[in-house]
Amino acid sequence: MRVVIVLAIDWYYNRPMFTLEPASVALIGASDEEKKLGHSILKNLKDSGYKSKIYPINPKHTELLGIPCFASIGAISEPIDLAVIVTPAATVCDLAQECGKKKVKTLVIISAGFSELATDEGKKRERELLSIAQHYSMSIVGPNCLGILRPSIGLNASFAATPSRFGNVALISQSGAMAVALLDTCEETGLGFSLVASIGNKADLDESDFLEICESDERTQAIGLYLESIKDGRRFVETAKRVSRKKPIVLIKSGNSLRGSMAVSSHTGALAGSTAALIAACRSAGIHRASTTEEFLDLLSVLSTQPPLLSRNIAVITNAGGPGVLATDRAESAGLTLVDLTEGTKSALRHVLPEAASVRNPVDVLGDARADRYGAALHACAEDPAIDGIVLVLTPQVMTPCEDIAKVIVESAWGHPLIPIVTCFMGGPHVQKARKILSEAGIPCLTTPEAAVQAMSALFKKETQVNPLEEKDAEDDRSSAASALLKNQTGLLSEELVDDLFALYGLPTPKGAVATHAKEALEIAQSIGYPVIAKISSPDILHKTDIGGIAVNLKNKKEVEQAYRDILASCVEHAPNAALRGILIQQFLPIGNEFIIGAIRDPNFGPLVMVGLGGIYTELFRDTCFALAPVTENQAYDMLSSLKSWKLLTGMRGKGALDIDALAKTICKISTLMTDCPTLCEIDLNPVLVAQDKIVIADAKVVVADRA
Amino acid sequence: MRVVIVLAIDWYYNRPMFTLEPASVALIGASDEEKKLGHSILKNLKDSGYKSKIYPINPKHTELLGIPCFASIGAISEPIDLAVIVTPAATVCDLAQECGKKKVKTLVIISAGFSELATDEGKKRERELLSIAQHYSMSIVGPNCLGILRPSIGLNASFAATPSRFGNVALISQSGAMAVALLDTCEETGLGFSLVASIGNKADLDESDFLEICESDERTQAIGLYLESIKDGRRFVETAKRVSRKKPIVLIKSGNSLRGSMAVSSHTGALAGSTAALIAACRSAGIHRASTTEEFLDLLSVLSTQPPLLSRNIAVITNAGGPGVLATDRAESAGLTLVDLTEGTKSALRHVLPEAASVRNPVDVLGDARADRYGAALHACAEDPAIDGIVLVLTPQVMTPCEDIAKVIVESAWGHPLIPIVTCFMGGPHVQKARKILSEAGIPCLTTPEAAVQAMSALFKKETQVNPLEEKDAEDDRSSAASALLKNQTGLLSEELVDDLFALYGLPTPKGAVATHAKEALEIAQSIGYPVIAKISSPDILHKTDIGGIAVNLKNKKEVEQAYRDILASCVEHAPNAALRGILIQQFLPIGNEFIIGAIRDPNFGPLVMVGLGGIYTELFRDTCFALAPVTENQAYDMLSSLKSWKLLTGMRGKGALDIDALAKTICKISTLMTDCPTLCEIDLNPVLVAQDKIVIADAKVVVADRA
Repeated sequence: MRVVIVLAIDWYYNRPMFTLEPASVALIGASDEEKKLGHSILKNLKDSGYKSKIYPINPKHTELLGIPCFASIGAISEPIDLAVIVTPAATVCDLAQECGKKKVKTLVIISAGFSELATDEGKKRERELLSIAQHYSMSIVGPNCLGILRPSIGLNASFAATPSRFGNVALISQSGAMAVALLDTCEETGLGFSLVASIGNKADLDESDFLEICESDERTQAIGLYLESIKDGRRFVETAKRVSRKKPIVLIKSGNSLRGSMAVSSHTGALAGSTAALIAACRSAGIHRASTTEEFLDLLSVLSTQPPLLSRNIAVITNAGGPGVLATDRAESAGLTLVDLTEGTKSALRHVLPEAASVRNPVDVLGDARADRYGAALHACAEDPAIDGIVLVLTPQVMTPCEDIAKVIVESAWGHPLIPIVTCFMGGPHVQKARKILSEAGIPCLTTPEAAVQAMSALFKKETQVNPLEEKDAEDDRSSAASALLKNQTGLLSEELVDDLFALYGLPTPKGAVATHAKEALEIAQSIGYPVIAKISSPDILHKTDIGGIAVNLKNKKEVEQAYRDILASCVEHAPNAALRGILIQQFLPIGNEFIIGAIRDPNFGPLVMVGLGGIYTELFRDTCFALAPVTENQAYDMLSSLKSWKLLTGMRGKGALDIDALAKTICKISTLMTDCPTLCEIDLNPVLVAQDKIVIADAKVVVADRA
Repeated sequence: MRVVIVLAIDWYYNRPMFTLEPASVALIGASDEEKKLGHSILKNLKDSGYKSKIYPINPKHTELLGIPCFASIGAISEPIDLAVIVTPAATVCDLAQECGKKKVKTLVIISAGFSELATDEGKKRERELLSIAQHYSMSIVGPNCLGILRPSIGLNASFAATPSRFGNVALISQSGAMAVALLDTCEETGLGFSLVASIGNKADLDESDFLEICESDERTQAIGLYLESIKDGRRFVETAKRVSRKKPIVLIKSGNSLRGSMAVSSHTGALAGSTAALIAACRSAGIHRASTTEEFLDLLSVLSTQPPLLSRNIAVITNAGGPGVLATDRAESAGLTLVDLTEGTKSALRHVLPEAASVRNPVDVLGDARADRYGAALHACAEDPAIDGIVLVLTPQVMTPCEDIAKVIVESAWGHPLIPIVTCFMGGPHVQKARKILSEAGIPCLTTPEAAVQAMSALFKKETQVNPLEEKDAEDDRSSAASALLKNQTGLLSEELVDDLFALYGLPTPKGAVATHAKEALEIAQSIGYPVIAKISSPDILHKTDIGGIAVNLKNKKEVEQAYRDILASCVEHAPNAALRGILIQQFLPIGNEFIIGAIRDPNFGPLVMVGLGGIYTELFRDTCFALAPVTENQAYDMLSSLKSWKLLTGMRGKGALDIDALAKTICKISTLMTDCPTLCEIDLNPVLVAQDKIVIADAKVVVADRA
């Protein structure tokens, strides 16, 4: 409920948009000193081919780099779309005020000295800046950023020394340095950009805003994000989910501590580690997550140029056995298949290739292959109905005409626009020109066969999950009843409360009650029927097994009496300060396999639901899957089938399938419970016993936030 | 025993060695046609700076490229060290004969048309070639290869178009195309070579020979191997183990089906997959295994230039936050630690860096850092007693003097020869010259922070296992008794034979016997004592659980009778053609956790021993470790501690440690059994029940090779 309201506010607030193609740019803090950024930026503005008006502003000059210079923005008579500010931090707010009065649309604030300092002064200054911008309906990029580039109109309003090539990739980077390094790298790899924005402190425009800007930008076909933090996780996921259906998004996220200092008391929390929320968010939003800077650029070059791969079936064409095998090896781990070519293709290949060539997949056109063989092989494979994508590998042999081959590939690719093609021209100086020919024609050329295959696999998209993240209409009665139950509760809930709460949601708990003396324990056992289980009941004891707080399979009075004494003694010894409520006597269910279902509330992405193999194996193997709530039943099935333990559920080694349906339903119920009750912060159902025809939650921990 | 003999023969056979620095080279098949390899090779020989004599041989010419040409090798009056043959395959044997008569020391056979054709003719031709070489005590490189390069004497006896740079890395490649591609790539990355050898079909000299050649070559400091197959696994491991102690070896192995078509009937075999033997071999031999071509070159550039990293503690120095975080993230997964700098270092850094700089680890010298700051930070970290290695990251900001910084790093590195330094200058054209300065000074410069950290981690070596692979002296009595037991046996051994065999080796099996009728089953159960377990006994049934062939925890007569009937019925139904020996009645041990111990015999690397988590989790999680036999007790401990289940063994969640000692001893005994009995091909002990004070093998399968 809380989340819905926050989103609503955000939607109603009419944010001023970013000016993608400004008709005029002012640079406040322009300088003639070569060492100063104000000089570098002015030079970039002047030399990158920007055709509209540039206004350097510096009261000490009347002219800079041959352009008339103004004393202040107010002194300019024409309207200004974009103002870049690169003056000392202390002057920025006043200057922003002047810009507001001048009706500037967008501010790019290069200056540092704001919230990144982590001082009160810096934070205060940034708040002030933001309120000025809001007052005048200006949008802000930065502060503390590199600036922005829009190559299609020759705009370089940044201090990046590398001129960025015009293309269809938008690069949004939280780090200016990374943007610079990536732009410089792309000078060689040939990736071109529709937009480069360094978003710095994200005082106003953040990654979600820029996703929206890219969504409606016709020049952008793919989006690369380098992020160190995500400002509003839920909004980011919602936006990315919508945008990624039209334009692929690749994310490289550095910094492994998204969840920050959140205290974790549950297994689920411990298992989530620092990346579970991010991984779940990316999966949910359809974002490609790159694990290295290299993969980031590889994925962008492939996703921005190639059509989707419609099946897992690819062909590899190579002029050398070794790299062909490396490509084949990688295909397996990347989930692609080198299927057999159809007979027609093989016979076509036999006609055009020498006898020693291999017409199986990978197709080996041999070390002395020239452009004709590559062209013929590419054509034959592209025409093969069994093949949906082609990876083409070249090693520069002494007789290999690399550039000719590149040209033939370009021609052939034009003839097969629906077949994705990824090339790998291995080597250095010998293949440099050929690589350029390919990349300028929009055919990705990567440096290793492994990378080429890996990037190709990103073009294969499984059915996208179209379930929206919006909350379902809560069943108001149940939701209010749950709220009433949790009112004034904090910390670990008692067994009784958990039972009541779970009963509301139809969660399958075992019969049982808490005994405060041995005789009562016997009466409860009697009423439930043997065998029973005995467990310590205490708000202070989370991991009962560890301190001897559980005894299972108690078959008669004597065993219950003994267990009652043993558990009490052990808990008094190992947890002397714990408040004890008594001993819970429950129906013992010696059935099925142990699973764990859990939930945590991520401060940024909201509730996350988890399922995994339970018992001691949870800790050993971390065979778990996390997803952002709400989780539909289909999604719950997807989560389960992504587990290694899926085999256990579907039946292995002569045993029948377990009750997957009930398990999936329980996941959904926990998801609903978490979204209904915003004060719930952690849930552990561990173990959930899953048999062939039923499941039961054998133990549950539910933690309510202290701030409730 | 068998292996020992084979090795001995190999040692006694006095192999003619390879001529690393020939005083004269003849090229048989030299040509003036530009399209022919005979022309390319002659040009390479002539133009690469080789100072000694070159003799082109071609009866049609008296001179080629200005060099006097001879009609045949016999026509040359001076002695010839190295002859390169590049004529059609059909002529090669006769020419080799002529070379033999001329007392040539080494033949490099470029020509294709030998065993790689997989025709009888090709194979026969290669055998003939080898016997000629042996007759005349010549060594052969190839056939079907690119040739060899020895840059230190300007020798390029290959058709590689890229002149290779002189350095200290030996590159041994089974694929000529890969060698060419790698050499060309290194033109940019700056790796230099002591030797490049393309070993082709490996008719004579193979990877193990070249390891020995590199071992004694003073110019070689690191060895890179690209292999598609390994000729003699055991010899390769023995040689690599010796060589890798002196010179690091990096291997990239393509092709995932080392074990070929070997039939696999055991769990151990299935779990081994195709790479277990290779992984075990690399670990045993101290070889660095690269998983991509990129990592291969990165590792070589670091291992060939940098001293070892003495601890896991490194510092990262950067001029930008983002890449610093990427480096830090990777350090964690690469097993390195960014430890706190000592107070002295921090205060030294505070003196030389501006206030906004971070003096924590990673050290951020800020975006406007010039050479002085990098130099000072590098010096301070290198002097810090807590730091054993430094990763230095640079992004090319507009004011970054990349080349100056490279020069300062080179100077500083000279001052700290014992501290490994790996740099990463991100970007493209802006950092190209700086990268060259670094690599020419022997400081590795990689392209991403992640790669730099990963490669740094290869410099950290855990205590090497110095246990030799030589077989221990077998206990002859036991070994002969085992041989007697296995005589004339093939396929799956009966329970009785397994019991006898295991008794010889002191392997802990449960009490039990096979019953052929229900009454006998009851008698056996009576004599062992309840509870018991009942299992089908059949040479044809491997996975008993899957077909209802096992009943556990039978507590009385009635249950045993019932189980006897059920198992028989189920086996008759599900395995109607299986020969049934009866039902095995065994002591039931409801104790401990299930592990699996197994062994297989790899056709190339010999016996492999495995341990892993048992039960159904074996299949789900593949938590296993393989090692080449023989395995010492220390190695068995290492295997166990590499498992994720190690926590289970050392005691988790309130439970005490299990009997690790007994488990390790059992692994060693299985290792000994496999080396004692060369006809044993597969062993599965699954499950091995491990309790706190004992272990027992609850089920065992032993398979003897049919060819026994």
